[in-house]
Amino acid sequence: MAGNAARIADVTVTPVAFRDYPLLNTVGVHEPYALRTIVEITTESGVTGIGETYGGTLHLERLRRAAEELTGLDVWNLNDLVARTTRALGPDTTGGDGMSGMVTGSSAVDRVMSPFDVACLDIQGKLIGRPVSDLLGGAVRPSVPYSGYLFYKWAGHPGQEDDDWGAALDPAGLVDQARRMIDTYGFSSLKLKGGVFPPDEETAAIRALRQTFPDLPLRLDPNAAWSPKTSLRVARELDGVLQYLEDPTEGIDGMASVAARTATPLATNMCVVSFDDLAPAVARASVRIILSDHHYWGGLRRCVQLSTLCDTFGLGLSMHSNSHLGISLAAMTHLGAAVPHLSYACDTHWPWKQPDEDVVDTEALRFSEGRVTVPTAPGLGVELDRDALARLHQQYLDCGLRDRDDTGYMRRYDSTFSTKTPRW
Amino acid sequence: MAGNAARIADVTVTPVAFRDYPLLNTVGVHEPYALRTIVEITTESGVTGIGETYGGTLHLERLRRAAEELTGLDVWNLNDLVARTTRALGPDTTGGDGMSGMVTGSSAVDRVMSPFDVACLDIQGKLIGRPVSDLLGGAVRPSVPYSGYLFYKWAGHPGQEDDDWGAALDPAGLVDQARRMIDTYGFSSLKLKGGVFPPDEETAAIRALRQTFPDLPLRLDPNAAWSPKTSLRVARELDGVLQYLEDPTEGIDGMASVAARTATPLATNMCVVSFDDLAPAVARASVRIILSDHHYWGGLRRCVQLSTLCDTFGLGLSMHSNSHLGISLAAMTHLGAAVPHLSYACDTHWPWKQPDEDVVDTEALRFSEGRVTVPTAPGLGVELDRDALARLHQQYLDCGLRDRDDTGYMRRYDSTFSTKTPRW
Ligand SMILES: [Mg+2]
Ligand SMILES: [Mg+2]
Repeated sequence: MAGNAARIADVTVTPVAFRDYPLLNTVGVHEPYALRTIVEITTESGVTGIGETYGGTLHLERLRRAAEELTGLDVWNLNDLVARTTRALGPDTTGGDGMSGMVTGSSAVDRVMSPFDVACLDIQGKLIGRPVSDLLGGAVRPSVPYSGYLFYKWAGHPGQEDDDWGAALDPAGLVDQARRMIDTYGFSSLKLKGGVFPPDEETAAIRALRQTFPDLPLRLDPNAAWSPKTSLRVARELDGVLQYLEDPTEGIDGMASVAARTATPLATNMCVVSFDDLAPAVARASVRIILSDHHYWGGLRRCVQLSTLCDTFGLGLSMHSNSHLGISLAAMTHLGAAVPHLSYACDTHWPWKQPDEDVVDTEALRFSEGRVTVPTAPGLGVELDRDALARLHQQYLDCGLRDRDDTGYMRRYDSTFSTKTPRW
Repeated sequence: MAGNAARIADVTVTPVAFRDYPLLNTVGVHEPYALRTIVEITTESGVTGIGETYGGTLHLERLRRAAEELTGLDVWNLNDLVARTTRALGPDTTGGDGMSGMVTGSSAVDRVMSPFDVACLDIQGKLIGRPVSDLLGGAVRPSVPYSGYLFYKWAGHPGQEDDDWGAALDPAGLVDQARRMIDTYGFSSLKLKGGVFPPDEETAAIRALRQTFPDLPLRLDPNAAWSPKTSLRVARELDGVLQYLEDPTEGIDGMASVAARTATPLATNMCVVSFDDLAPAVARASVRIILSDHHYWGGLRRCVQLSTLCDTFGLGLSMHSNSHLGISLAAMTHLGAAVPHLSYACDTHWPWKQPDEDVVDTEALRFSEGRVTVPTAPGLGVELDRDALARLHQQYLDCGLRDRDDTGYMRRYDSTFSTKTPRW
């Protein structure tokens, strides 16, 4: 019965919504709910595995289409998962990245297969009594470091009471935010989402963070809001202050022109977002660090391969995050544990999620000293809570949001808001 | 007891010798015996896994040193295998490639860990009842294509009777050899080991093969015996005739200078033999095809990663072979099955091995239409025959050979033989 134990009998695809904070970025502001999709795979023998991905309409429709192709797939044949996903999508590969315009050009097949890859690995692990990290080559560290992710933010969503984090619209507000985040989670590096205010204000915020936390590595990510000229000026001003500068400007060529003229390391999760982007980025020396993300790099196994590739070409490896739930945090942690080349603490939006909202019991994912201990239970080490899933699915149905639209939400309150690139 | 089932209790390292033919190449001629090392790993619960690698003195000594570090290793933690091998070798990483001077610069850690990686995957597969191909991502083809490997050869070893293949020292001899090889194994592509006679003679041999087998892809591999100028001349003469020209000249720069001036695709297993070689080779566009070889690329998992890397950078993927036994053929076949990007039939020296000499029952590895069906039994799908291992180990002890030395053997019969590079 070994074959049947691993053969997929059923796949369910469930969109969910969870509360989010009014976090600012260069394309607008986070809406009151973040959207995700939870996939659950069940094998013929009844073993289940779970995965998590974006929640937008087109992506959701593609996930459902791919899910129909997966009946009969052997969870050990992840190459066949790629083939079936490719077949399911056919020529429909444009759009659907669910990033509100901030990341483009990632591969639709890689995005759609990702949650199923995670779910298959979850099942593999359960079948053999091993954590997913073992299926990725084995943990090289007992816990994975994450970075504290700071955002400019409003005091609360318009029309609602101020939230528990309150406003952060200047250096002092960000320092307070950082302090609470460090006190709560123990992070030992910090990232600021920039591209919101003029560069000099964000530079001042970085300097305030540096002064308050003299030993913590700092990163700034303006999501390509700046021209190459502005990028170069800021990069030079912050030389020696930043651990890395993330996507100051747009595109492989723009980044290359900045990288060639500054000692500040440049990182990206915007101009190198798929395997197709690597050859030109390497040829032009556009970046020194790539932020991997299993949600759009084709799942966990492909990210292990990306890691070897970065190592081979002298690139550092960090990890990108969007708003996510516990399944993704577990997956990110197994991956972070199994890539020897991981050079930096990983990003996570975890502090911006309500502790009482998730689809899994997050007890196994507690932060200590900014790190998450790699789960050692079989598979991902987290189990789906179907009541919680039902609640967050109902919240999805009720909230009315169907596609992430940071820009549209911002324009409701600032009709002149523009996403002109570069802004500065 | 799952932990104990996977924890290594014992490793044995056994050098063996098997009969070889007087095959000519640019550094000399194959000696009467080829040397290999067989490793066997046993877990605490008594599950065994096997691997195969080179048999030279220094390599053998390193394998034994690494083996001592492996007690207690969990066979699922292949990252830890890398770490332990690295620790065992320390700064001792020069030489020991066992290639008779034809491949240099590969990584000692990658070479030494390779048979243990294969043996660990063999055990993993047995523990979960799955073939090794599943542990590499799943088979994308039911059988793996191999190429008929033609050699110029003497009629027999000096002082011995003529062997069953007889001489092949001119185009007619090679055509006869090719015909027998195709009749026996069904190969649908052919590779000629060149660098033995002046280029025009080898070109004539390729033309004779083309005339006799008009539809078969042909490859020529002079092992860097030619200058860039000669390489370019031959590449142009054979443009449209060769599927690829393998290592006509030495080095990443030499190959790049030829590649830039010919339409004939260049392949290599000499100038790109480790992950460290990839960045410069890609930057200079030295080759269009890389011949992987799990024996020096760090085992099967690393070769899967190499495959993704080749795909990412627009490089084709083929497979290199040295004289080998059935364990390696099984490993090569699982790997060849699990890399979607494999673009060419793999090399194998299999026809040059005596059918009655092996350390495993080779029944599962029969050739049909030039292909080997991927074993579906758990692990590698071949089992160690300890009596046969003892016989080939005794043959190793008796034969007196301890290091591959094609050049020294040639010089016994031609004292003027030189390995001057380039020869032509
Ligand atoms: Mg970013
Ligand atoms: Mg070769």
